[in-house]
Amino acid sequence: MVGGGQLARMTHQAAIALGVRFRLLSETVDSSAAQVVSDVSVGDVDDLTTLRAFAAGCDVITFDHEQVPTAHLRALEQDGYAVRPGPAALEHAQDKLLMRRRLSADGAPVPRWAEVSTVEDLTAFGERVGWPYVLKAARGGYDGRGVVVVPTVAEATAWMDGAVALGVPVLAEEKVAFTRELAAMVARSPSGQAVAYPVVETLQVDGICREVVAPAPGLGVARAVEAQRAALDIAGRLGVVGLLAVELFDTPEGVLVNELAMRPHNSGHWSIDGAVTSQFEQHLRAVLDWPLGTPSPTAPYSVMVNVLGGDLPEMHSAFRHVLARDPGLHVHVYGKDMKPGRKVGHVTVTGSDVDALLERARHAAAFLRGDIDE
Amino acid sequence: MVGGGQLARMTHQAAIALGVRFRLLSETVDSSAAQVVSDVSVGDVDDLTTLRAFAAGCDVITFDHEQVPTAHLRALEQDGYAVRPGPAALEHAQDKLLMRRRLSADGAPVPRWAEVSTVEDLTAFGERVGWPYVLKAARGGYDGRGVVVVPTVAEATAWMDGAVALGVPVLAEEKVAFTRELAAMVARSPSGQAVAYPVVETLQVDGICREVVAPAPGLGVARAVEAQRAALDIAGRLGVVGLLAVELFDTPEGVLVNELAMRPHNSGHWSIDGAVTSQFEQHLRAVLDWPLGTPSPTAPYSVMVNVLGGDLPEMHSAFRHVLARDPGLHVHVYGKDMKPGRKVGHVTVTGSDVDALLERARHAAAFLRGDIDE
Repeated sequence: MVGGGQLARMTHQAAIALGVRFRLLSETVDSSAAQVVSDVSVGDVDDLTTLRAFAAGCDVITFDHEQVPTAHLRALEQDGYAVRPGPAALEHAQDKLLMRRRLSADGAPVPRWAEVSTVEDLTAFGERVGWPYVLKAARGGYDGRGVVVVPTVAEATAWMDGAVALGVPVLAEEKVAFTRELAAMVARSPSGQAVAYPVVETLQVDGICREVVAPAPGLGVARAVEAQRAALDIAGRLGVVGLLAVELFDTPEGVLVNELAMRPHNSGHWSIDGAVTSQFEQHLRAVLDWPLGTPSPTAPYSVMVNVLGGDLPEMHSAFRHVLARDPGLHVHVYGKDMKPGRKVGHVTVTGSDVDALLERARHAAAFLRGDIDE
Repeated sequence: MVGGGQLARMTHQAAIALGVRFRLLSETVDSSAAQVVSDVSVGDVDDLTTLRAFAAGCDVITFDHEQVPTAHLRALEQDGYAVRPGPAALEHAQDKLLMRRRLSADGAPVPRWAEVSTVEDLTAFGERVGWPYVLKAARGGYDGRGVVVVPTVAEATAWMDGAVALGVPVLAEEKVAFTRELAAMVARSPSGQAVAYPVVETLQVDGICREVVAPAPGLGVARAVEAQRAALDIAGRLGVVGLLAVELFDTPEGVLVNELAMRPHNSGHWSIDGAVTSQFEQHLRAVLDWPLGTPSPTAPYSVMVNVLGGDLPEMHSAFRHVLARDPGLHVHVYGKDMKPGRKVGHVTVTGSDVDALLERARHAAAFLRGDIDE
């Protein structure tokens, strides 16, 4: 796995059970994953020579994030390495413009959008969908970076010009009046087997995932199937191998695709403690072309709340209080320094009363980040 | 953790989630645990100098097995290291004679037993409990080694003399007419907090655990509480810190204590996939004096079947078939070479129909070891 973040850390846990020999290419010696993985190479994941040397020791290469340059992935694939997901699929998670073009061409449900590069483009799009609308950098953004809501053509122009000056294309999207955000996660293997996890509700604050409820409360079967079908359809059409997380807007008229991720995803962390097969085990099984596991939940509801870095210098002192208050809590710590707003862990609780689960998980996360002390 | 077996391997998985920095002292560079742990020292776990050097880098020392000499543990404790469980408790899991003396003195339910060192002892014990009965080496045995059923005084004498010649004391125990075997697992922290897992039924063949059903089917509440109380009582009286697994004989008159283990135990593997808090996480929480987690099951029943080495040189080819047949299976692979009779992995399934779960888990285990090919 390329990239030493918490997704690689948690994938290693799954690899241990499966007996999969897990090798990591980490940016640093003390990354979240490098702290716990036995077989670590440290190197620049943007450097093709480094990637080639790493790939030479692996049966299959997969990724903790989508930041490895597409051209390098194509080179590795041409060298004959098993790159999963392959660049032909992964580039749609790397480049929002490519993604929007492809999904529109395939008839997937998407918000109205346009590529924009001139003031005239911005004005025309505003006339078409109304103000404010959303601008997105085609590449390089995650956790809300590279996305802005613009209320006027002047602000839109300033932001667009900044991105274009960095050589990054910009697309405009309507600001969808969604009732809530959903995520549909599917896994697909090279041989085409696919499974769909229950559709979850996600709460994003400032573009960062804060909470996930699995399955999404009150979601009708028809809407759930609509979301799962959209995700399975995208996975099949793009030839995704591994996990595909489709972030969706839920609207009165139906779901609209917001973003794609082709890797274990924050919206699937609940599955470690709340599904028969966790997303991390599933990703390994998919990229290894092993039969996929049951994605069914093991409890009526699972609630996952992210722990973001806050005022506490470290989590340890709060940790015991949180465990003592709630012995049914699943705490996942990523081994990362506490920085404000940074994802440093998550908590999951499972049960049948969503409101009670939310209270428990929110309390634990708030306590761990130091927002409350009782 | 001292010892590089599969228990350390699975404890590392739990340590990753908790953010606990896990350091391993492994007998070899490629032990089951050393393959997956990032921070490994390789050395002789029976050597006090090695143990001291290892302990110096740890906040707490705990164990994958009970083979570390008691004298070394006492020396480490006298050095001021936090040895958990401490030697005063652990010696009762290391020495069956000490265990029997102590449990008898404490009034715990035990089979009739006697220390034996002469032919007269053997004869007298046979007259007291009848033939055949059981002889056990006080130290050094596990997975059925060091235990024999003797039908005559001649065979008893030969076996006893062999053990005594090796300097190992021998004890005789009645051959209990049990209806089944049970295991009661509890965890206890230094501050005295304790939790009890559901009592499980175990199936032993040739002294090796083959199957576990959690909770034990048809066990009445009174008998379950009797078993849990016995285990909690032993843990408290002996001052156990960490896990205590009490292997029990179920008889019409009540339960009798067979063996003790003070570490994660084969009878608790089901808890990884079938309990809110796995035994491995629980052991870490206990030895770190953190609040303990909920031991409740997450499904009506969990069935665990061990995969023993058989005729196949490796598990891999069978692995895909097993996963394809049963996508709800949890397979745990220990990374050990296949040797006949060796524990190389286990499978767990959860659900509500015990017979169906047993069929699924037994089939998978038999397929993985090569006993069947369809």
